Amino acid sequence: MPRSPKKSNFPVSQIRRYLEPGPIVLVSSRWKDETNIMTMGWHTVMEFTPSLVGCIISEGNHSFDLIRGSGECVINLPTTTLTDIVVGIGNSSGAEIDKFQEFGLRPVSAKKVGAPLIGECHASFECRIHDDSLIDRYNFFILEVVHAHVATSPKHPETLHYTGNGAFMVSGKIISRRSRFEPDRL
Amino acid sequence: MPRSPKKSNFPVSQIRRYLEPGPIVLVSSRWKDETNIMTMGWHTVMEFTPSLVGCIISEGNHSFDLIRGSGECVINLPTTTLTDIVVGIGNSSGAEIDKFQEFGLRPVSAKKVGAPLIGECHASFECRIHDDSLIDRYNFFILEVVHAHVATSPKHPETLHYTGNGAFMVSGKIISRRSRFEPDRL
Repeated sequence: MPRSPKKSNFPVSQIRRYLEPGPIVLVSSRWKDETNIMTMGWHTVMEFTPSLVGCIISEGNHSFDLIRGSGECVINLPTTTLTDIVVGIGNSSGAEIDKFQEFGLRPVSAKKVGAPLIGECHASFECRIHDDSLIDRYNFFILEVVHAHVATSPKHPETLHYTGNGAFMVSGKIISRRSRFEPDRL
Repeated sequence: MPRSPKKSNFPVSQIRRYLEPGPIVLVSSRWKDETNIMTMGWHTVMEFTPSLVGCIISEGNHSFDLIRGSGECVINLPTTTLTDIVVGIGNSSGAEIDKFQEFGLRPVSAKKVGAPLIGECHASFECRIHDDSLIDRYNFFILEVVHAHVATSPKHPETLHYTGNGAFMVSGKIISRRSRFEPDRL
């Protein structure tokens, strides 16, 4: 099984570093006596401070009720060591199985929310619902990241980016153009 | 200069193929006698049909007024052959320069909107504002893709994914897990 990387606290205003490139993520949730995990690919950073992330969580997902009911969840960033687990989680329902147990993942207590972090992921972002005004119309949740945990290495984790039809793009090399940026546009 | 790839029409319900992996995009707009281009990294697919994309366009951008005023724009997908142009566009203002002219890009007439496509990009998605209810509060536009143009090759373009601080992740290899998906979860 994949190991759980050592993590440190990370500034919530800088989580775009991990989410802006569009990785598939695992969303963990807990409400009453139920815990679940879902895969999510439809999300975007919306603001630095407060640290806002908008995302689609379909009402057809078992996680929808847990997240709406508790007002909380954790966005976890898996890497390619977890590829088959990511696919397995996306192709099963928490209405039928306990996904932490089924996939051998380690739940870790969060600092500020009731939902557990997934220990094996590279990063975990604890979230609370910030604005629910577009949930009924679009299943669109606006979340505030209230605490962030990021693995101390590697600096550039190998992430998965879904393209539909069962195919993922794996993150490639990093190139910098820092010297060509205006400081306030970085 | 980069060439303009040959494109064909593409089903608007399937544009997640290109936008879900999180590429930086170039948004072109036109209103009255002004045309502009901006870079954008904060966007997400929201629905297949209608084909909805949510995105943040800051009111501080010159493009904000053009897109809100016209109710339209085009989301263009650049590849790594355009890296320095993408950076240049993101570090200049359309209030001061004509970006098509400055960066030697070819404006191409759209089919359904007034804003021009960027010929050199791999794909162009013509959009109309679908819901403006979160623009005032979050600068969040919900766009409907009304027509899509995609280059006939390559099948997997090398895209740029911004991580902040002047650094881009370049798209890597494609891996398939299609056989492990339930058909209705692809």
